[in-house]
Amino acid sequence: MKVGKLPPSLLLKYVLSRLGISDPAVIMGPRLGEDAAIIDIGGGRVLVIHSDPITEAIERIGWLAIHVASNDLAVRGVKPRWFLVTILLPQGADVGVLDEITKQLDRAAKEVGAMIVGGHTEVSPGIEKPIVIVSAAGICDKDKVVMTSGARVGDVVIMTKGAGIEGTAIIASDFKELLLSKGVSTDVIERAQGFFNEISVLPEALALSREGLVTSMHDPTEGGLLNGLIEIALASGKGIKVFEERVIVREETKVITKALSIDPLKLISSGTLIATVPRNLVDRAVSIIKGLGISASVIGEVVHGKGVTVVRRDGSSAYYEEFIEDEIGRLWEAYG
Amino acid sequence: MKVGKLPPSLLLKYVLSRLGISDPAVIMGPRLGEDAAIIDIGGGRVLVIHSDPITEAIERIGWLAIHVASNDLAVRGVKPRWFLVTILLPQGADVGVLDEITKQLDRAAKEVGAMIVGGHTEVSPGIEKPIVIVSAAGICDKDKVVMTSGARVGDVVIMTKGAGIEGTAIIASDFKELLLSKGVSTDVIERAQGFFNEISVLPEALALSREGLVTSMHDPTEGGLLNGLIEIALASGKGIKVFEERVIVREETKVITKALSIDPLKLISSGTLIATVPRNLVDRAVSIIKGLGISASVIGEVVHGKGVTVVRRDGSSAYYEEFIEDEIGRLWEAYG
Repeated sequence: MKVGKLPPSLLLKYVLSRLGISDPAVIMGPRLGEDAAIIDIGGGRVLVIHSDPITEAIERIGWLAIHVASNDLAVRGVKPRWFLVTILLPQGADVGVLDEITKQLDRAAKEVGAMIVGGHTEVSPGIEKPIVIVSAAGICDKDKVVMTSGARVGDVVIMTKGAGIEGTAIIASDFKELLLSKGVSTDVIERAQGFFNEISVLPEALALSREGLVTSMHDPTEGGLLNGLIEIALASGKGIKVFEERVIVREETKVITKALSIDPLKLISSGTLIATVPRNLVDRAVSIIKGLGISASVIGEVVHGKGVTVVRRDGSSAYYEEFIEDEIGRLWEAYG
Repeated sequence: MKVGKLPPSLLLKYVLSRLGISDPAVIMGPRLGEDAAIIDIGGGRVLVIHSDPITEAIERIGWLAIHVASNDLAVRGVKPRWFLVTILLPQGADVGVLDEITKQLDRAAKEVGAMIVGGHTEVSPGIEKPIVIVSAAGICDKDKVVMTSGARVGDVVIMTKGAGIEGTAIIASDFKELLLSKGVSTDVIERAQGFFNEISVLPEALALSREGLVTSMHDPTEGGLLNGLIEIALASGKGIKVFEERVIVREETKVITKALSIDPLKLISSGTLIATVPRNLVDRAVSIIKGLGISASVIGEVVHGKGVTVVRRDGSSAYYEEFIEDEIGRLWEAYG
């Protein structure tokens, strides 16, 4: 099997069909493109829980692990409140590594306003670098919870910040020499590395859902903005049409993706929020996001049908409905 | 740092002091020896959640992961209902490995009567063998939840099944050649391997708590029965006195630990339930456990003071209060 997230065909066959008992309290269980499980706990409330593993550079692994897991609750309109954190360290790791990771976890949990309530820390033989797995939990009113599947025909599609911002930061950090050899300036590379700081979608996602402005939200990870849109379309049983010229692509992302001939729309993009919004609420939604100091663009709309149609600048269009392999995987294969 | 669970000194300094915000809804957060977090969700109910990573042989990793995480909820008197499962596979793993793991997860979740509601499956570079991390969640009435810290002076201490049963099974599986070379018979080894099937404490733990018979329960993992007792003593701020002659040690465990000169009381022992029970309820508690076809023994009592005193067969006694290193770690270092 290939490195990375499991492709949908294997996920359906080996994972999603083997879930133990079927529990009627589970409103949303594991499904392609859905971000966090939703469980009816009675009293008009739901428990929302989610897990994500992170294998990343030590300088950011703990901080990212908390924020990435938090994003998946935030796009449900749920504030993450409690975390379980599993830290696996490679044999020979010194205590400085643990110190660094737990400092980051603490800081990120404070930023989110949540508490680490349990977990497990161990030195594991058989791993080369630290792995941090975070489970996040929160509770909200049942009628307030947002689903990826909630998009309705006529809704407008909004995106924030920029396509591929996480991937841009990863490339700027992990492929710095390659970028320099392709003529990308140190200045651009350093600014691109700073995109990691934009990885939380919590403030904007919670503000939009609190005001009841969204029918669905999604945090596009592997496969980038395009895959995120495909997942909303698939989950909602609708089509999505977007205009390439309206997609935000940051200058640093343009320079870096052009240098490496990769498509920013297919580049991993935690931190970017995709939201579908009823047409009459779009102005308010955009103004709330911008009020938080975050850029936003109306990039298209939800339509009848299925899949995602991207209208290119020249008026031609491209249609996508299959799982998109992330550009960063290609990069690792070519240069990793 | 040494392979295995983090020692208490490092856990206190680097992990338990870095938990993000302090949340008054968290009745029981991360603490030495406590099994699962307890969170007040209002309406007289608590959410109980717990995470555990497993790196084990492929033939049992998925099945064990579900049952081990379930045990930590069960000793709270809480039925596990929902699981998040993260599966990390090594590069080059074929689909047969995934198939095997998810079949086991499905089977174990059905045995427990719970549902896998989410998770993440990926092929990760940098790991040598599969890792499965399970988070378990359940809800119960606040006044019914059981804490490791609930032991009271005068309570009687009960244990089930046998000391070191999990370790016995691991040694019989992973050190088979060594055992044969020490003269242990194939017959004993095969029966010992079967101890894996006894790893769930769910039926007995839930039955005892449902009847309100326990003041505390614990599932002794690393450091074995002795460490489990130390953790109850520490959490409860009491001492525990046990009589070695009353400790159940299965014949297979005796043969195997004697052959390798290891102490069965310090051998990892998931599947063994330790419970403290008010003296007037002991007969009922023991009869409920035995009614489930599970062996049980009254091994001692909760006393004033601290630490664990083991009264040996010859009348001498040994006192323990520090974290016990598991015998299986020594074995891996010597022969692994």
